[in-house]
Amino acid sequence: MPVVTLLTDFGTADYFVAAMKGVILSRCPAAVLVDVTHEVPPQDVRAGAFTLLATYREFPAGTVHLAVVDPGVGSDRRPVVASAGGHLFVGPDNGLLGYVLAREPGARVHHLTRDALFRKPLSTTFHGRDVFAPAAAALAAGARPEELGPEVADFVRMDLARPRRTGDGALEGVMLHVDRFGNCVTSFTREEVPEGRGVRVTVRGREIRSIRRYFAEEGAKAGEPFGIWGSAGFLELAVYRGSAAGLLGAAAGEPVTLRVE
Amino acid sequence: MPVVTLLTDFGTADYFVAAMKGVILSRCPAAVLVDVTHEVPPQDVRAGAFTLLATYREFPAGTVHLAVVDPGVGSDRRPVVASAGGHLFVGPDNGLLGYVLAREPGARVHHLTRDALFRKPLSTTFHGRDVFAPAAAALAAGARPEELGPEVADFVRMDLARPRRTGDGALEGVMLHVDRFGNCVTSFTREEVPEGRGVRVTVRGREIRSIRRYFAEEGAKAGEPFGIWGSAGFLELAVYRGSAAGLLGAAAGEPVTLRVE
Amino acid sequence: MPVVTLLTDFGTADYFVAAMKGVILSRCPAAVLVDVTHEVPPQDVRAGAFTLLATYREFPAGTVHLAVVDPGVGSDRRPVVASAGGHLFVGPDNGLLGYVLAREPGARVHHLTRDALFRKPLSTTFHGRDVFAPAAAALAAGARPEELGPEVADFVRMDLARPRRTGDGALEGVMLHVDRFGNCVTSFTREEVPEGRGVRVTVRGREIRSIRRYFAEEGAKAGEPFGIWGSAGFLELAVYRGSAAGLLGAAAGEPVTLRVE
Repeated sequence: MPVVTLLTDFGTADYFVAAMKGVILSRCPAAVLVDVTHEVPPQDVRAGAFTLLATYREFPAGTVHLAVVDPGVGSDRRPVVASAGGHLFVGPDNGLLGYVLAREPGARVHHLTRDALFRKPLSTTFHGRDVFAPAAAALAAGARPEELGPEVADFVRMDLARPRRTGDGALEGVMLHVDRFGNCVTSFTREEVPEGRGVRVTVRGREIRSIRRYFAEEGAKAGEPFGIWGSAGFLELAVYRGSAAGLLGAAAGEPVTLRVE
Repeated sequence: MPVVTLLTDFGTADYFVAAMKGVILSRCPAAVLVDVTHEVPPQDVRAGAFTLLATYREFPAGTVHLAVVDPGVGSDRRPVVASAGGHLFVGPDNGLLGYVLAREPGARVHHLTRDALFRKPLSTTFHGRDVFAPAAAALAAGARPEELGPEVADFVRMDLARPRRTGDGALEGVMLHVDRFGNCVTSFTREEVPEGRGVRVTVRGREIRSIRRYFAEEGAKAGEPFGIWGSAGFLELAVYRGSAAGLLGAAAGEPVTLRVE
Repeated sequence: MPVVTLLTDFGTADYFVAAMKGVILSRCPAAVLVDVTHEVPPQDVRAGAFTLLATYREFPAGTVHLAVVDPGVGSDRRPVVASAGGHLFVGPDNGLLGYVLAREPGARVHHLTRDALFRKPLSTTFHGRDVFAPAAAALAAGARPEELGPEVADFVRMDLARPRRTGDGALEGVMLHVDRFGNCVTSFTREEVPEGRGVRVTVRGREIRSIRRYFAEEGAKAGEPFGIWGSAGFLELAVYRGSAAGLLGAAAGEPVTLRVE
């Protein structure tokens, strides 16, 4: 039974998400539908990209991930289908798939041009239902990405998501995400931080040296930033009873530097 | 695998929706459950009716649509089962199915009286679980509407949903819905508006002549109302960066007149 | 097809719930997933316990109920698996399963120690994904609770949920839950209140004698508390157009006395 996940900024009060699900079940009755979230902040492509990044690997290989945060709907941004890390992805080529594509070597992207698939009449405003859901259903029913359109190489990347070594031995990464509580999710994983080694993390000129196991670890002082390994697998910067993003003045996209001691 | 959709005003914080799903899966284990929404504004039958109208056709033929927005629960309003447009519907006879029944010629409605089906003890306040969910499960498991009770002809209609030609060649329709942003969804579809013809839409004495493809089309002036084809297939009235409902003083149920030039 | 329900305080805006579902579907592809709610007030174990109590019996026998409201995650509170009333339960041993365990005679609880099952690396903060979801998937796939760890007798109970007879013939119960509207759900069921007999309910020294069928029954006076049989099967205390909890000064956990006349 093919799994199709859905991630959008549509909310759940209107008919939008259900219409997409109806299209998928009409074309692939065996699909198992799983909501990731429909509460991505409106048009916040980067927040959607992070949520997708934090989720997709938990699903079975071959899962189709349908993601629609699409401020450019109706413009010339391309609809795409991607194959990465054993999973399939459908969405606009606007960076929403960018973290996944940056992490997965060998990712391939196809421009979704096979308009015979699309729901008619094609609306100008609801490609989630008319373009992306039909493509997700086709993939779930066994179509291969290359059947849906030509491969493209110039898709939107979020390259900074992969830490890069700088001249002086430091690693340069990026702030992937700032969550609702002001916690700052960096792009550093345990691959970059050997167990038991001290680290220095620098954001906007401020250095953070302490890594804690728990938020409320003994000795935690309110207002002081520290690192903590988040459940998505990334090093996060946090402040006990406060907002790290507020304290550091940091936002998603910001460069972050890591030095292992 | 039979699909059962659920549309209510119950919210998702309590046990109500899950209890309905448990009843359905207990009686029809193969049912595929899809939430339309549970955030219909409390007791807003018309808003629920519109959301159902905008969704049901996307689902496979034979889908059972379970809809519960039911201010009269416990009173003598009838529970009904309807067959319309190749779909099945279960809900109170209070107008919630009214837009669908008005659109689908040949719709048939049965009074749900077969109380042997009901969950016991029958509560006075939760017919969603005790009356409607059992009926939806029975239909999903293969029961025919006529097995659930006698056919009735005097069900609640929302006749105005079908545009009517007036003496002077105009069409009279109705405001189906006002959405969260103040956009006004009329009952006019592309069947009434030939491609490429100019139109005049009149609401509460105010005339709107411009139809746009996008909200932010060039030349859009803040505060000026215009028409736009919405993704539900209806002509909507909107105001760029504003509320058409506020500007026009219009509410759901209001008459709307269309003249094709 | 095994049913797995999910109840948490995680909300639906983040990747948490989807990550749990991905883990379950990866390990038990046939699982049918049903959300109970993810809007339990944060860390409100008792509110989660009530919602679980009000829901589980509607589901088919053998359903796995995965419940995570877990303020002690990372501490030494035990993860457990319970078998009660023909259903299976997975969650922290912090009272979340306590109402169900108090109601179901013959409930058995196993300490979930089989860490070979857990998702690796095991996070310190997200046992919903790493500990509980794998256990739920194992049970859904056919594992028996005793295979997941040793039986324990000293699990957290909420014994007050079962009314106890006092010396003078009264029954002592407890306030199970206060809902969003201030309605107070007591632990008394129809088993304790013979049909047609008068009752006196006492909470914090205040006596309530009237039981109504509807909220808006004739003769209802705003501001006066009354009893009503709620759809979860318990006697609730309510105030027409008001908050019973506010009026009575009562909270969940409070003792409640019932005298049948």
